[in-house]
Amino acid sequence: MSIQQERRPLDSEGLSTPGPKPIEWNKITKMPTVGILGGGQLAQMLYQSAISLGIEAHVFASVTDEAAPKYFRDITKASSESWTPPEIYHFAQKCDAVTFDHELVSPNIVRELEKRGCLMLPTASTLELSANKANQRQRLSQLGYALPPYQICNSVPETVSFGERYGWPIVIKPSTGGYDGRGVFIIENEAEATTLFNTLSSHLPFVVEPKLALEAEGSVLAVRSTTGECLTYPMVKTMQVDGMCREVTCPSDFSDEVTEEARKIAENLANELEVVGILAVEFFIVGGKLLVNELAPRPHNTGHTTIEANMTSQFENHLRAILGLPLGSTELRVPAAAMVNLISNSNSQNVIPYLPLALSVKKASLHLYSKTPRKNRKIGHVTATANSVAEALELARKTVDILSGLDISEG
Amino acid sequence: MSIQQERRPLDSEGLSTPGPKPIEWNKITKMPTVGILGGGQLAQMLYQSAISLGIEAHVFASVTDEAAPKYFRDITKASSESWTPPEIYHFAQKCDAVTFDHELVSPNIVRELEKRGCLMLPTASTLELSANKANQRQRLSQLGYALPPYQICNSVPETVSFGERYGWPIVIKPSTGGYDGRGVFIIENEAEATTLFNTLSSHLPFVVEPKLALEAEGSVLAVRSTTGECLTYPMVKTMQVDGMCREVTCPSDFSDEVTEEARKIAENLANELEVVGILAVEFFIVGGKLLVNELAPRPHNTGHTTIEANMTSQFENHLRAILGLPLGSTELRVPAAAMVNLISNSNSQNVIPYLPLALSVKKASLHLYSKTPRKNRKIGHVTATANSVAEALELARKTVDILSGLDISEG
Repeated sequence: MSIQQERRPLDSEGLSTPGPKPIEWNKITKMPTVGILGGGQLAQMLYQSAISLGIEAHVFASVTDEAAPKYFRDITKASSESWTPPEIYHFAQKCDAVTFDHELVSPNIVRELEKRGCLMLPTASTLELSANKANQRQRLSQLGYALPPYQICNSVPETVSFGERYGWPIVIKPSTGGYDGRGVFIIENEAEATTLFNTLSSHLPFVVEPKLALEAEGSVLAVRSTTGECLTYPMVKTMQVDGMCREVTCPSDFSDEVTEEARKIAENLANELEVVGILAVEFFIVGGKLLVNELAPRPHNTGHTTIEANMTSQFENHLRAILGLPLGSTELRVPAAAMVNLISNSNSQNVIPYLPLALSVKKASLHLYSKTPRKNRKIGHVTATANSVAEALELARKTVDILSGLDISEG
Repeated sequence: MSIQQERRPLDSEGLSTPGPKPIEWNKITKMPTVGILGGGQLAQMLYQSAISLGIEAHVFASVTDEAAPKYFRDITKASSESWTPPEIYHFAQKCDAVTFDHELVSPNIVRELEKRGCLMLPTASTLELSANKANQRQRLSQLGYALPPYQICNSVPETVSFGERYGWPIVIKPSTGGYDGRGVFIIENEAEATTLFNTLSSHLPFVVEPKLALEAEGSVLAVRSTTGECLTYPMVKTMQVDGMCREVTCPSDFSDEVTEEARKIAENLANELEVVGILAVEFFIVGGKLLVNELAPRPHNTGHTTIEANMTSQFENHLRAILGLPLGSTELRVPAAAMVNLISNSNSQNVIPYLPLALSVKKASLHLYSKTPRKNRKIGHVTATANSVAEALELARKTVDILSGLDISEG
C-alpha cells in the first residue's frame, strides 16, 4: 500500500462522510496499487492496461477463478466459495483503490469496507443499483428514463395478470443472481411462472416484461473519474443470443439522433448516479425509440472493441477513472471494428489445434481468457478492425468459427 | 513445460542436426510456455501480448532487472550478475521456446542449449551476428548490402590511418557490449582513440566509420516465423540523439522507392539470415541512398508504435513467429503515429506528480517501464496516433515534456 487512507470519523449513522478520499497524486511517492475483486477476463484485461500505466494490480480471486492465477503476480485466493468480509477487508487494506471484475459482491460488504476507509469503486451505492434489477428499474423510472414496460412482481398471480395484460410469452428477470443470460427467462404460461417462482424464490422480486419486438440493441459506455470528468464512447450495436452478447459492431448503423440521445443518456446516468469508472448502458431500440435496458458499472463485454478500435481502451480508462487521473480520448482510431465472442460449444472444447488456421485470418486480434471450457461459457473474443463494419465482422466471425471447429476452409 | 523437446542425436561435430523442432500445434494439448531471457521493458510488453494469446510466459531475470518482477507471475532470478549455463539450461528446459529481452547473452551458451534440444529463437547463429558488430558488418558486406564506409580495426595505428583518410572525427563502435548509444563513440584524434583502445580492449575489434552527414535515419521491422512466413512492417523514420533512439514517426516521409527498397532489404535479410522473430533493420539515408546501419533480432524500440498503430504489434508477431503460428497483419490501422521515448534526465526523476497533467493530453498512450530512473535511461515511451505525423508527434512530445518536468502549460 503506497498511501495511507485517512480513517474518517463516523457520523451519527455510522456512515463515513463524505467517504474515503480519492488518490492525491501530488502527495504520493509510489505508484498506487489497484485491487480487483474477482479474477476473470475483465481482471486480466485490466492487468494488461495496468502494466502500461505502471500501476500495481492485485487480485482477490474466487476459488474457481482460472484466468487470473495464470498471469497475475499478486493474488489473494478466497478461502471458500463465499467471500467473508474479514478476508476482503484484509485484501482491500493493502490496496489504494479497489474495483470489481463482476457484480457478485454484496453491496453490504462493500459499504462496510467504505466505512472502514477503503476506496471502493464503484461505490456500494452504485453496486446496490446494478446488483439488484428491481431496484435498478425503479431508480431509472424515478429519474425519468424511457424503459421497457415492466412490473415488479412478488407472486405468481401478479405475474399471470401481467402476462394476460401484455400477452404471453413474457420475460422474467429475477432481481439478483444472474448475468450473461443466466438471469433472463422466457415464460410461456402460468405453470412455467409457478416453477420459476418456486425455483428462484431467493431472488425475488422479479422484474417482469413483455417480450418486445426489438429492432436492435446497442450500448454506450460512459466513464467517469473521481474528479467528476465524464466521457462517453461511440455507441456500438450489439447482437444478443439467449440474453448473452454474441457480437458487437462499431460504429453502429443507428441514426445520429439515436446515437446522440443514447450518448446523453449514458453521460447523464453516470453523472446522476455518481458512478466512478466505466458505466455500460445497454439499450433496446423499439419503434425507433431508445429504451434503457440495463446498467453495469464496470468494464463490459460490449466495450471490448475499445482495445483495438479506440484511442483509449475501456480498461485503461476504468483504471484512470478510479485513480482520479484524467481520462483518455474515447474516440475511434479506426474506421470500423467488430467483436465476436468465443463461446464454448461443449465442456471439452479445445481451441489449440485450431489456432494456426484461426490466426491465419490476418487482421483479427485474438483474446483468450484461459478458462476451462464449459458449454455456453465465454472463453475468449476476437476483434477485427477494417474499413467497414461488414468487413470487420466477416473477419471476426471467420476466426471464431474456425476456433469453434465450424469452419475448415482456408483462412 | 507442455511439450517434451525431443533430444536429438549429436552429429560428429557435436552439433544437433537440424536443430530443435518447432512447436507442433496438432500434437500439443496445453498452451506452450515461452521463456524470456532478461526482464526489461521488452519482456514486459511481450507479456502483455502473451496474455491475449493465452500463452504462458516465464522470465529469467538479471539481478538488476526491475520491470519484470513487478508483473510476471513466473520469474527465475539469476543468482549473480553473470548468468551461468546451468542456470539458463534449467530455466530453458521448462519452456517450449526461449527468446530474448536483449542481446547480452553469449551466443556460445545459446548454442550449447540448442545442442541440448532447447528451442532458442533467435538462434545462436543469429545472435552471433547481432551480438558482434564486426561480424555483422562483414557478413552484411559479403551479402552485398550497401553499408557505410567502414574498417574493422584492431589497433590505434589502423584507426588513426582511417581517421586521416576520411577526416576526423570518426565513429568507433566496439564489436561487443554496447547498446542504446553506449557502444558508439565519436573520436576526435589519436589521443582519444588511444584512450578508447585502452579502456575497451576486451571489446575488440572496433568497427570504425567516418562521421557521415546523415539526411535521415529509418527502420524496417521484418518478422519471420519458424514456418518461413515473412512479413515486413511499414518503414518508420527515426530520430537519434547520441546514438539513442528518441523519436519514431510513421509513415516515414521517405519516397516510395526508398521505403520499398528498405522493405525488400529487411525481408531479404530475414530470409537470408534465417531469422525467427522480429528483425529490426536500421538504415542511414545518405545522398538519397539507403545504407544498412545495424540489425537487431528482437522486438525493437523503433517498433513500439506498432502497439497502437498496426494491426498486430511487434510483440504479438514475435511470439507468433517463435511459436510457429501464422503472422498477423503488419498494416497500419491508423493514418499516422509517433513515439517519443521518456528518457530519465536525472538519477532521481519522479514522474508521479506529473502524471495527471501528462495524461490530460487526451490522445497519447503512455507506457511506463517500472524502472528506477538513472540519467539517460529509457524509463518509458509515449505513442500518439492522429491524422497526421505532425499532430501525433506534437501530442507525444508534449506528454513526454510534461513527464520530464519540462512543460507546465495546460495539457
